[in-house]
Amino acid sequence: MRIKLIVSYDGENFSGWQRQKNGIVSIQGLLEEAVYKLTGENVSVVGSGRTDAGVHALGQVAHFDTNSKIPPQKFCLALNTLLPSGVKVLKSQKVKDDFNARRDAKLKTYKYSVYVSNIEKPLKEKYSVRVFGKVDYEKIKANAKKFVGEHDFKCFCASGSEVKTTVRTITELKVVKRGEDLTFLVTGTGFLYNMVRILVGTLIAVGRGDIKEENIDKMLKTGKRSLGGETLPAKGLCLMNVKY
Amino acid sequence: MRIKLIVSYDGENFSGWQRQKNGIVSIQGLLEEAVYKLTGENVSVVGSGRTDAGVHALGQVAHFDTNSKIPPQKFCLALNTLLPSGVKVLKSQKVKDDFNARRDAKLKTYKYSVYVSNIEKPLKEKYSVRVFGKVDYEKIKANAKKFVGEHDFKCFCASGSEVKTTVRTITELKVVKRGEDLTFLVTGTGFLYNMVRILVGTLIAVGRGDIKEENIDKMLKTGKRSLGGETLPAKGLCLMNVKY
Repeated sequence: MRIKLIVSYDGENFSGWQRQKNGIVSIQGLLEEAVYKLTGENVSVVGSGRTDAGVHALGQVAHFDTNSKIPPQKFCLALNTLLPSGVKVLKSQKVKDDFNARRDAKLKTYKYSVYVSNIEKPLKEKYSVRVFGKVDYEKIKANAKKFVGEHDFKCFCASGSEVKTTVRTITELKVVKRGEDLTFLVTGTGFLYNMVRILVGTLIAVGRGDIKEENIDKMLKTGKRSLGGETLPAKGLCLMNVKY
Repeated sequence: MRIKLIVSYDGENFSGWQRQKNGIVSIQGLLEEAVYKLTGENVSVVGSGRTDAGVHALGQVAHFDTNSKIPPQKFCLALNTLLPSGVKVLKSQKVKDDFNARRDAKLKTYKYSVYVSNIEKPLKEKYSVRVFGKVDYEKIKANAKKFVGEHDFKCFCASGSEVKTTVRTITELKVVKRGEDLTFLVTGTGFLYNMVRILVGTLIAVGRGDIKEENIDKMLKTGKRSLGGETLPAKGLCLMNVKY
């Protein structure tokens, strides 16, 4: 039978989702090891997509196949006893044999968190990134709209990525301000490598006045990466949920 | 001149507020070292009170004396360049020579955060503590009122503490529920060692039905520690602010 998992992790101490050689600790590797310890089976745990080292997840989705007689819902607690602190399965359930966590993912939502302050706030540093100086929130909100829809996100992608097409669709991009905290909620059908981190970095650069608003239009048209802002750190990013 | 500091720290990697022998890293020690590097002076940085290893602070208050010519407000940024990540000065200002961060503290507010879940939530584990099973929120709220006012908190105090009196006044105790998250905001004129952690642990035990509601009344009357709940972990506790 095929089991679907909802997995949450604090990215800080792990090398990212994807299994690594040389014993580097990945989320996928930890889950496969836990399934092996539980059932004796060498399975492949397929995630909805990779998350980089340091990126967090509230609701990553994955699947694997098993011949075990363990009731589907029980995998959750059983795997959790075998997983280290920082990675936990929130839910397990039986799904149809042709469900594929990666291929069938329809929408993903990522959250990127920053705070605007000239002083480091120690209690915000784990899950958000500090931005210096002044930021024009209304300008960011207005420019965020430019990304919604189908676009060629060629220059919102780390170099060296091998993908067939760099066209992606963002269905929603919400920017929420609460005091000095700015939260970006980006929903789309799929994301390129580093896409959210470059996209938010570019919006922040526009909000700070480091680059012109027109740069975003030019980037989407010409694909020139150098027109954009920096790739923001991994720790501000969190995979919130995946819809099927 | 005397400088007042507002200090924030993530308690995770430090041994608590108080300077330690043997090179253990304390917040007070780090601040004194930073002042020494900045001014060449061996000062004593006096905090509003100690916080234990692992306890966080959003607004700890401290003072020290200096003959330096650095403008008072500039100490903030200057000290921050000398402090490690995780400990930062949010504000510095000149105060009267007889201001004393410890003696003059009128009210302190602590926050204790728990979440009620049978599954560990990795992204909540840094700053809150998981509680198992079912918790009766209304019962907790009703019993929290019993602590407000002047009471002998003898049994809400770690054994071995040396204090003249164990009578303390709690001016407000707010319990806020948001989904599975429960936050306790405790304001008082002063706190005994581990007082908030035992107090919240006892309210949680009442809410879970592990101990009877009457136990709280008996504890306040008889001082019998064994009637209460456990001392909750440090990581759920945060010193929010100190009023003068």
